[in-house]
Amino acid sequence: MNDLSTELAAFAGGPVSTTAQARIVTSLSALDWFAVGMAGANEPVSRIVRDMVLSEGGAAQASLFGGGAAPLRAAALVNGTISHALDYDDTHFAHIGHPSVAVFPAVLAVAAWTDRPVVDLLEAALVGMETSVRVGLWLGRAHYQAGFHQTATAGAFGAAVAAGRLFGFDAAAFRRVLGLTATRAAGLKAQFGTMGKPYNAGLAASSGVEAALLVQAGFQPNEHALQGAFGFAATHSGADDATTALAGLGDEWLFESVSHKFHACCHGLHAALEAARDLDIAEPEVAEIKVHTHPRWMSVCNQLAPTTGLGAKFSYRTVIAMMATGYDTALPDSYADKVCADPRLTSLRDRITVVADDEMSETQARVALLRRDGARREAIHDLLAPMALSDREDRVRDKAAKLIGSESADAIWTMLRTGGRAADLAVRMAG
Amino acid sequence: MNDLSTELAAFAGGPVSTTAQARIVTSLSALDWFAVGMAGANEPVSRIVRDMVLSEGGAAQASLFGGGAAPLRAAALVNGTISHALDYDDTHFAHIGHPSVAVFPAVLAVAAWTDRPVVDLLEAALVGMETSVRVGLWLGRAHYQAGFHQTATAGAFGAAVAAGRLFGFDAAAFRRVLGLTATRAAGLKAQFGTMGKPYNAGLAASSGVEAALLVQAGFQPNEHALQGAFGFAATHSGADDATTALAGLGDEWLFESVSHKFHACCHGLHAALEAARDLDIAEPEVAEIKVHTHPRWMSVCNQLAPTTGLGAKFSYRTVIAMMATGYDTALPDSYADKVCADPRLTSLRDRITVVADDEMSETQARVALLRRDGARREAIHDLLAPMALSDREDRVRDKAAKLIGSESADAIWTMLRTGGRAADLAVRMAG
Repeated sequence: MNDLSTELAAFAGGPVSTTAQARIVTSLSALDWFAVGMAGANEPVSRIVRDMVLSEGGAAQASLFGGGAAPLRAAALVNGTISHALDYDDTHFAHIGHPSVAVFPAVLAVAAWTDRPVVDLLEAALVGMETSVRVGLWLGRAHYQAGFHQTATAGAFGAAVAAGRLFGFDAAAFRRVLGLTATRAAGLKAQFGTMGKPYNAGLAASSGVEAALLVQAGFQPNEHALQGAFGFAATHSGADDATTALAGLGDEWLFESVSHKFHACCHGLHAALEAARDLDIAEPEVAEIKVHTHPRWMSVCNQLAPTTGLGAKFSYRTVIAMMATGYDTALPDSYADKVCADPRLTSLRDRITVVADDEMSETQARVALLRRDGARREAIHDLLAPMALSDREDRVRDKAAKLIGSESADAIWTMLRTGGRAADLAVRMAG
Repeated sequence: MNDLSTELAAFAGGPVSTTAQARIVTSLSALDWFAVGMAGANEPVSRIVRDMVLSEGGAAQASLFGGGAAPLRAAALVNGTISHALDYDDTHFAHIGHPSVAVFPAVLAVAAWTDRPVVDLLEAALVGMETSVRVGLWLGRAHYQAGFHQTATAGAFGAAVAAGRLFGFDAAAFRRVLGLTATRAAGLKAQFGTMGKPYNAGLAASSGVEAALLVQAGFQPNEHALQGAFGFAATHSGADDATTALAGLGDEWLFESVSHKFHACCHGLHAALEAARDLDIAEPEVAEIKVHTHPRWMSVCNQLAPTTGLGAKFSYRTVIAMMATGYDTALPDSYADKVCADPRLTSLRDRITVVADDEMSETQARVALLRRDGARREAIHDLLAPMALSDREDRVRDKAAKLIGSESADAIWTMLRTGGRAADLAVRMAG
């Protein structure tokens, strides 16, 4: 049997050979993470966690989204929470979680504090997120179904490894940091729909930084706390055999297939929105729209006629109608109570039907349009379908520009692609 | 079915009616906790965690064992870790853990910071530890056997409630703090035998303080994250029905039956040491000693002829021989490599036999002495047997005096019993 800790530690502690694709996707995730963090900086949960940390004072080691600075562990807690506050960050389906919100808060804090170039930050982030993805894949769907939030649990291991990489850990130190993280990685899906969900991401980031700091200072934990009778998988309803999770480690970057969100609403709606986008639907032409989606989503995001912005984020009929009537589904502010009462939107919404369809996978949707002129068109979209890198770049940069302004988005992209300093990125967090 | 969160929150949020016994036992646990914390302040794990926190700086809200001060969350992490570093703190068998090391670090930090009298500190500690015991009992043996460290998991809930009590939470706030704690309570038995074990206690204390601070600031988590399909018991191999765990809550203080350790070694040795103490054995008279113990301990603490101080802490033959040759088993320093080589001790050790005996419970031991004059004597001790309160007070105060000197032990006891200020207690942590 492959020993997960040994293999992951050898991977993280050695030289890595990254691909151009992995490097670009990591840069895109960095930009995306930064933009959603800035956009979420004043959410209620963001203020509560940031204010708690600012009231503690301490060394200004790392910048916070929305302003101020804090020690590394505290900054990771704050920035992890804030960047997941809108639930608009990236998703990896094999990880079963959101890799960036656990790893970037850790890696940006440590890289800026140690005055590293952005290229080091990105490499550490990639190694950390690849670790999260592999650990999430190892823990598997059973872990998620039991009630654990992989973003938080697998994410803590990724954050720890990313921080350790910037501290220059060798394989032995990585074994220790993985073993120590096993005793504090936590986070329950029971918090979904509450402030506890973004907080779980902050926990992961902060736990990773703390584990790395302690190991750097000589902490000696059990190095073998992941696998085996009392290991993390056994205690946390995970799988234990690591063969699949380790396949291709070091050669193949599973992180490359991360998905970015281009609509500021429930992920279950995205395939349908992308299909509708392909059809370029405009409200006046619509006689009828049918949305075919996987049955599992019917209880998640099929509110028929919500009256609030929050409800709109969980409503196929509303978001499709929003798109067709000119509201920008990429902007969090579009999901407003008054939009739900717009007569053009409500009238169109009544012409949209949602169908549970076993032929769709969870990442697929089919949208069928009947035009007033009798023409029929339809489009299918699968969120897992590979996206041309140039398209992905255009869309992430466009999203970032909408969230933080094109000047900031372009400046950050330039830093990420042409080698700025991590500290220059961090100073932009104040907004 | 009783709802655990609702019942615990109603208990914690209302006026409590304590018994004299519960108050005295809580004071004894406070003294005991303080003494073992001071004694452990310079252990390697203590230095590592304290140095990490001190390097962060921040508001001097709470004192640390061994000197210095830190914000509340950080101080709880440090003092929880340090006070469990020697594994010499109190134990509650129904909790299946060590209540004081999770709760007192939280409660002393908050009480001193808010300048409260010791009587408030003790009441909050008692309510918190009663919560830990009830949560530990609810999670049950299955949770512990699965690999979770109840000191850390159940302890986090106790620390959160204790801190919330000092913040003046009502029942609604207590439901929130319990719900929030569910997403971060963590700690694995896989860390036993490493620095990770005491760190788990620090995690619990710190997690509790953080949850209380966040709820005080308006954090809205899922209040129902303990029971049910995705609750803490379901995810963490706990039982779910709370009837037994809640029986008598508010009228009966399960915490009263906490055990204090009077020997600085593995708990599996204590019943045998107490039985030997009753026999008042002196080495020259011994022809043969037989120690009968529960079979489970044979693989835990039956090293036959250890050569190191650490090994001595897991050796029936060694600790009984230490006691009979005049070494004080209450002093951590007695467990030294050179003691293991003392010829008087090794000679006596060869006359001691350890027997696995199904008739003993895990908390019992029988010691049979054959004297050189042919006389036979034997004693049985059960750690669960009630101890007269005056005896317990004598022994805890005697232990504290050995660990921190009688002047300090007496001064702290006076503060605890006659109403000092929490801050006066805290200033003594520098040593």
